Amino acid sequence: MRKPIITLLTDFGAKDHYVASMKGVILGINPVCTLVDISHEVKAQDIEEGAFLLASAFSSFPQGTIHLAVVDPGVGGPREPVLIVTSNYFFIGPDNGLFTLSLLREKVKRVIVLTKKRYFLSPVSSTFHGRDLFAPVAAHLSLGTKPEAFGVRTDTWVELSLGKPEQKAKELVGGILHRDVFGNLTANIDEQSLSAFTRGRPFSIRVGRHTVRGLKKGYWEGSKGEVIALIGSGGFLEISVREGNAQEKLKAKRGDPVRITVANSR
Amino acid sequence: MRKPIITLLTDFGAKDHYVASMKGVILGINPVCTLVDISHEVKAQDIEEGAFLLASAFSSFPQGTIHLAVVDPGVGGPREPVLIVTSNYFFIGPDNGLFTLSLLREKVKRVIVLTKKRYFLSPVSSTFHGRDLFAPVAAHLSLGTKPEAFGVRTDTWVELSLGKPEQKAKELVGGILHRDVFGNLTANIDEQSLSAFTRGRPFSIRVGRHTVRGLKKGYWEGSKGEVIALIGSGGFLEISVREGNAQEKLKAKRGDPVRITVANSR
Amino acid sequence: MRKPIITLLTDFGAKDHYVASMKGVILGINPVCTLVDISHEVKAQDIEEGAFLLASAFSSFPQGTIHLAVVDPGVGGPREPVLIVTSNYFFIGPDNGLFTLSLLREKVKRVIVLTKKRYFLSPVSSTFHGRDLFAPVAAHLSLGTKPEAFGVRTDTWVELSLGKPEQKAKELVGGILHRDVFGNLTANIDEQSLSAFTRGRPFSIRVGRHTVRGLKKGYWEGSKGEVIALIGSGGFLEISVREGNAQEKLKAKRGDPVRITVANSR
Repeated sequence: MRKPIITLLTDFGAKDHYVASMKGVILGINPVCTLVDISHEVKAQDIEEGAFLLASAFSSFPQGTIHLAVVDPGVGGPREPVLIVTSNYFFIGPDNGLFTLSLLREKVKRVIVLTKKRYFLSPVSSTFHGRDLFAPVAAHLSLGTKPEAFGVRTDTWVELSLGKPEQKAKELVGGILHRDVFGNLTANIDEQSLSAFTRGRPFSIRVGRHTVRGLKKGYWEGSKGEVIALIGSGGFLEISVREGNAQEKLKAKRGDPVRITVANSR
Repeated sequence: MRKPIITLLTDFGAKDHYVASMKGVILGINPVCTLVDISHEVKAQDIEEGAFLLASAFSSFPQGTIHLAVVDPGVGGPREPVLIVTSNYFFIGPDNGLFTLSLLREKVKRVIVLTKKRYFLSPVSSTFHGRDLFAPVAAHLSLGTKPEAFGVRTDTWVELSLGKPEQKAKELVGGILHRDVFGNLTANIDEQSLSAFTRGRPFSIRVGRHTVRGLKKGYWEGSKGEVIALIGSGGFLEISVREGNAQEKLKAKRGDPVRITVANSR
Repeated sequence: MRKPIITLLTDFGAKDHYVASMKGVILGINPVCTLVDISHEVKAQDIEEGAFLLASAFSSFPQGTIHLAVVDPGVGGPREPVLIVTSNYFFIGPDNGLFTLSLLREKVKRVIVLTKKRYFLSPVSSTFHGRDLFAPVAAHLSLGTKPEAFGVRTDTWVELSLGKPEQKAKELVGGILHRDVFGNLTANIDEQSLSAFTRGRPFSIRVGRHTVRGLKKGYWEGSKGEVIALIGSGGFLEISVREGNAQEKLKAKRGDPVRITVANSR
């Protein structure tokens, strides 16, 4: 059998002990799984940023990988803990929209609300479900426990609205989701939505007062300092500046609108 | 046999090569151990913060885990390198108090001063015992070398005073040990000391000019913006603000006193 | 067979998903390799800093380790992707000088330009060769694929000039390469070059307006606050302040000259 992989994404930061505590619990239950950090630098309690980073990384992992994600402002409150089984992966975490962007690209097969206390640490603290609830469920799942064993099925789950660009009269309107360490700006406009809207016609992209025409294939197609657009490595529309910093040049911030218009659509 | 686990806690930061060098040395000696980072973002040479983070994480790991911790302002000087064997774990690092808070919760069985050069890299640099001395000892220990083989037994070790709150006439007085990424403040008052002092009577907690009555079970019991106290996930008293930042609201910093008084103790 | 080790060094930072994506790809190809981060906090597109950090860490790893390094301002452009085989290690990354300092200490046996697309992800994005090209090559190499299979041999590779101090009339002149988290300053003057120049004679080291005489064996030989020089743990000349911060005290920055003069060389 393949050695199971569990990824971790949280807003716990690199300084505190929280991530290590989760890993300790997992390794206590399943000592032979491989643990991989996706990011622990999600802004505190920023579900949208967590959703974006998870969506950008999850599909690089082999089938069967367990993605454990905890950005959880409602810990201990009424939000449900869930396990979502898709055609290729398992997602475990709070049902607060954190998986929205990932699930756009996966077929959801089952959603289980985690209720079976025998798979949790005992007692479950009210402040740290990452360690006491999600980590042990991920570890037991990696040992082969069936998803249904962890709780009860449900047919609904929380989705964030950031998942989809809106199609208006003559525009496709999305927003800036993320800026990376290089200053590249990623919008919530995925390659499929963009193609469906533009259908091969020339188009423009507007962010603030900048307009970019069409897509480049890579950074090197721009001249130095030019604002360009391309499909980033995560499959979303990305605004970049060759050998520069798009975020600084455009003074754009998260949530700022990104508007696509087809050139001949007057 | 279980695959051995070695955790690492240092003040080396994520940027420099120091942590990787330690891991390289360990894997050269024992290629099949599992390495887990607790934190490398301990403030430079801040033994107290390192002690707190280690104490918060170590007990989440399975029995037999080797905890390797290096916050070591006295590297190359007279402080002793030690291996501490407790009922459940092994601790390796400089004998400067770094293990104080962890050892409060473990039964110490043996303390070995690391003297046997055959288990060190050769030559041992004077600036990097993490790589040249502690890492190879941890790796050899993970291969099954007996603790006694690494040096000579001792009966004393360094303890920091931060470990214990002080019981005064009508108060239990501790101090702020740590603030986490969410702004939660943790005091050096553990659940046991608090219970022993309050013996089921109602009590108040004072930090600066704020007074909090009793403990909540979790963040969700507070109203938005309310200052609350609870036992944090590491077993210590924690001051939090629901959907807020306690450190900012209380303007508290490390070392600030935290005073517990029983309500009817006039 | 030993479990293969792949190290990763990039300028991708801890927040974004880039490093995790590379690891996902590697584990999809070789689920049983051990992944170790050297650093992902190299300043964005700073090849020199990446070269220094890699050179400081690579030789702590066991023979046969695969060092995967991506600091790649020219991604998608004309720079070649390479695999460099040395007497002890494998280095994979862009041929832009990133390996300069490491190769000073290794014997280069073969350099392969990576051209064989069957070992890349398909399609290769133009922006993320770390994931689409370098990661899969490293993973296939760790499975035992022969270096020659990945492309065509070459006899030349890019070297940065920072690699070597310059010997002038009566001085050996290098520069500050790096400051670490403690404020220690490392120069591009390695122990061998220094010995060859000083040949046992007393010497002085000048940085800015500070002059330091000779080397100490360790930090503890200085008095508190004294500026001292020693050979750092990576084998390079290091300027430190005992219980202080050399970078702040000397106000030195990267690139500042470091001059060695032999005392009696008038």
